[in-house]
Amino acid sequence: MLFLAHMVVNLPPSMPEAEATAIRAKEREYSQALQRDGRWVELWRVVGEYANYSVFDVHDNDELHTLLSGLPLFPYMNITVTPLARHPSRIAEKP
Amino acid sequence: MLFLAHMVVNLPPSMPEAEATAIRAKEREYSQALQRDGRWVELWRVVGEYANYSVFDVHDNDELHTLLSGLPLFPYMNITVTPLARHPSRIAEKP
Amino acid sequence: MLFLAHMVVNLPPSMPEAEATAIRAKEREYSQALQRDGRWVELWRVVGEYANYSVFDVHDNDELHTLLSGLPLFPYMNITVTPLARHPSRIAEKP
Amino acid sequence: MLFLAHMVVNLPPSMPEAEATAIRAKEREYSQALQRDGRWVELWRVVGEYANYSVFDVHDNDELHTLLSGLPLFPYMNITVTPLARHPSRIAEKP
Amino acid sequence: MLFLAHMVVNLPPSMPEAEATAIRAKEREYSQALQRDGRWVELWRVVGEYANYSVFDVHDNDELHTLLSGLPLFPYMNITVTPLARHPSRIAEKP
Amino acid sequence: MLFLAHMVVNLPPSMPEAEATAIRAKEREYSQALQRDGRWVELWRVVGEYANYSVFDVHDNDELHTLLSGLPLFPYMNITVTPLARHPSRIAEKP
Amino acid sequence: MLFLAHMVVNLPPSMPEAEATAIRAKEREYSQALQRDGRWVELWRVVGEYANYSVFDVHDNDELHTLLSGLPLFPYMNITVTPLARHPSRIAEKP
Amino acid sequence: MLFLAHMVVNLPPSMPEAEATAIRAKEREYSQALQRDGRWVELWRVVGEYANYSVFDVHDNDELHTLLSGLPLFPYMNITVTPLARHPSRIAEKP
Amino acid sequence: MLFLAHMVVNLPPSMPEAEATAIRAKEREYSQALQRDGRWVELWRVVGEYANYSVFDVHDNDELHTLLSGLPLFPYMNITVTPLARHPSRIAEKP
Amino acid sequence: MLFLAHMVVNLPPSMPEAEATAIRAKEREYSQALQRDGRWVELWRVVGEYANYSVFDVHDNDELHTLLSGLPLFPYMNITVTPLARHPSRIAEKP
Repeated sequence: MLFLAHMVVNLPPSMPEAEATAIRAKEREYSQALQRDGRWVELWRVVGEYANYSVFDVHDNDELHTLLSGLPLFPYMNITVTPLARHPSRIAEKP
Repeated sequence: MLFLAHMVVNLPPSMPEAEATAIRAKEREYSQALQRDGRWVELWRVVGEYANYSVFDVHDNDELHTLLSGLPLFPYMNITVTPLARHPSRIAEKP
Repeated sequence: MLFLAHMVVNLPPSMPEAEATAIRAKEREYSQALQRDGRWVELWRVVGEYANYSVFDVHDNDELHTLLSGLPLFPYMNITVTPLARHPSRIAEKP
Repeated sequence: MLFLAHMVVNLPPSMPEAEATAIRAKEREYSQALQRDGRWVELWRVVGEYANYSVFDVHDNDELHTLLSGLPLFPYMNITVTPLARHPSRIAEKP
Repeated sequence: MLFLAHMVVNLPPSMPEAEATAIRAKEREYSQALQRDGRWVELWRVVGEYANYSVFDVHDNDELHTLLSGLPLFPYMNITVTPLARHPSRIAEKP
Repeated sequence: MLFLAHMVVNLPPSMPEAEATAIRAKEREYSQALQRDGRWVELWRVVGEYANYSVFDVHDNDELHTLLSGLPLFPYMNITVTPLARHPSRIAEKP
Repeated sequence: MLFLAHMVVNLPPSMPEAEATAIRAKEREYSQALQRDGRWVELWRVVGEYANYSVFDVHDNDELHTLLSGLPLFPYMNITVTPLARHPSRIAEKP
Repeated sequence: MLFLAHMVVNLPPSMPEAEATAIRAKEREYSQALQRDGRWVELWRVVGEYANYSVFDVHDNDELHTLLSGLPLFPYMNITVTPLARHPSRIAEKP
Repeated sequence: MLFLAHMVVNLPPSMPEAEATAIRAKEREYSQALQRDGRWVELWRVVGEYANYSVFDVHDNDELHTLLSGLPLFPYMNITVTPLARHPSRIAEKP
Repeated sequence: MLFLAHMVVNLPPSMPEAEATAIRAKEREYSQALQRDGRWVELWRVVGEYANYSVFDVHDNDELHTLLSGLPLFPYMNITVTPLARHPSRIAEKP
């Protein structure tokens, strides 16, 4: 079941650079583990912003919330989740 | 080059049903041709709305505008386009 | 899996009263069938508005979209869907 | 008498972790006492956000304000309250 | 129990003047009956707008919705309702 | 001449509790003096928020601004003022 | 007593040109009478919009509402009124 | 003196195609005359929208308003004008 | 050439009172010099807010930006500028 | 390929003046290098704001994001990017 997530990161400028680097490294590791197990399906940077659009494939809402609230950057992000359904004009297979 | 597009459809309730059916059939055909040639990469329905999120892969902005303004439903849609860039945490290959 | 839906109805004032009455009767029947089969869990009127908040319990996003887009009033409503998860402070059983 | 409340929590990132843990424990205790006495009827987490939707059943507006302004997290929350009325299509008994 | 209501009227310019006059007369009669029985406590015009702020004193949410949805102008109004509570600094008696 | 004021209080969480208590006591005293002299006509708490709706009866705009900018909490509030006029449907005397 | 008013005109494109011309002529006459008697103090066009900013000098809110609701274009305008007070840095006399 | 203008076109779907074609042809002619005389300096289509961003070089605000309000599509557009100033980091000559 | 400016002041509550007093004194002096030389034509306080509406008469956009960005309170203000044009219904001379 | 960027700068008032001066100097140098190599095509100050509108000419979205996220002021800016396409009414050559 697919969901689109829009995530905007707001790291406080007062955060020491070492702390910011560490949290970003953890975020990257966390994200890549989820990409490898097939649940974080798409991940794009929004041009000109410290923000991303992502697509998640999960079994239910609880799984998605557990996944998102576990993000190392979660306390510094505004996340908006949009549930997606199959579009009637979508062709069955990608070329 | 990837773009996310959010399209909201507003068909006037006064449009005769036959006209609405015809325009939707044309839209579907147009959309599927672009999906098959690899430029309309993703297409999802937003749950509970007559709207979609789509991802397009095009060579440049002009190609995307030509493609979108040619949609049979274009006169009845509000479209918002977000340019996407590669995310530094994205893994190279999907599982 | 639970979702909160906010539905705002905009029937055009020009719609003949008989047509409006008929569509509202169909909506009521459709809604009550879904309440009886346990998928339309809660249904409240927003005070002072032709709008409601509803809770749905469905298996996945596709089922919810099918259900909502089948509403007789769907062409006249703005619907916003919010996916809900279990709250960690929620007690297991209602009193 | 029912009210829907949307609560968004904004704990300042500068709050010491021990203080945040303590305030969240108090909030949980406070919430569960109200759930047990039947006034905090529903409590759901919004997926991807530090926010909830709740339903309260109280005798009047003053009781609801007393209850909400007593929340341990009240100084850190934005709360929006929507008064709910009986919906004419609601069936009398849940299945 | 008090509620503040903000009502904005949008009569379509295409409505025949006789019809508009009739509906406004009914609205006035309806409003004055409620003012006399003590439930429509305050009624002010917003300067420069076809809108009002009103205060209602009712027993519960259902009574308020019945009252508001019965307004002759209801199909042409956007109404926003704010539940009010006693303010701790309010003095007991007006001078 | 009547004005509706919507006041939202934003005391910084970092303010020492003694300072907050003192400023709230001054605010209360200031407010009650104005209620007693008949210029602060109505004062209601918005349910679930640290906010109020108030009605003021003053001679002119300058008097209202002097009154509002003198509020002890003024530096911590967002205030929106709406000028009110007599409504043509208002009955002359309250019941 | 001064008020700033922002007026946006929305004449329906379907209005016959003769009717639009007539209503604009009446509006102009009405406006100029008020400018001459000293109550419509300032009147500026917003560049690129069918809108204006105006300053009115009236005795009270009721006079202003009577004046604005009498505008021939009133049924086709969105008006926002801002009450103005004397600024403490304003010099007594214009150069 | 430079201004950025954002223009959004809303032609009513009910406008006969011949009328729409004629008005668009006039708009094009009008626009190109202003481009040739050096006052309409830049003109870009917003991707995915019936909208443009334009830069105008005029002597003063009145000249700009005359120019914009004379656009054949003016009754069908929402225009927002932003005054531009020289940026201190701008280099004197384009490469 | 006239411009309307809306200025909202946000002095941080943590600013020492002496510093706030000093910056306000400089602002006042700066403002009065511009009022005296005829470029700051109007200056009104918005009732209930630490904000003003002002009218400026300058030769061009660059002059206005230089003037506004030189305000002692500029780093603490949100300013919105609206270019004004002559209104066709304006009478030539004020009474 | 052209993009319009709107950049709003929010330097925290608590930043030491020397640090602010240094970062602004780096920003200027960075900006001028990009203007000289032809990728930062236009750069205008928004009158009355610490903000700019810019036009960039780049090969693709990734190049633009690299360029913008490398801005020395990037952590202190809100940037909105609008992709631009050729307008059908644009004349081939500037006068």
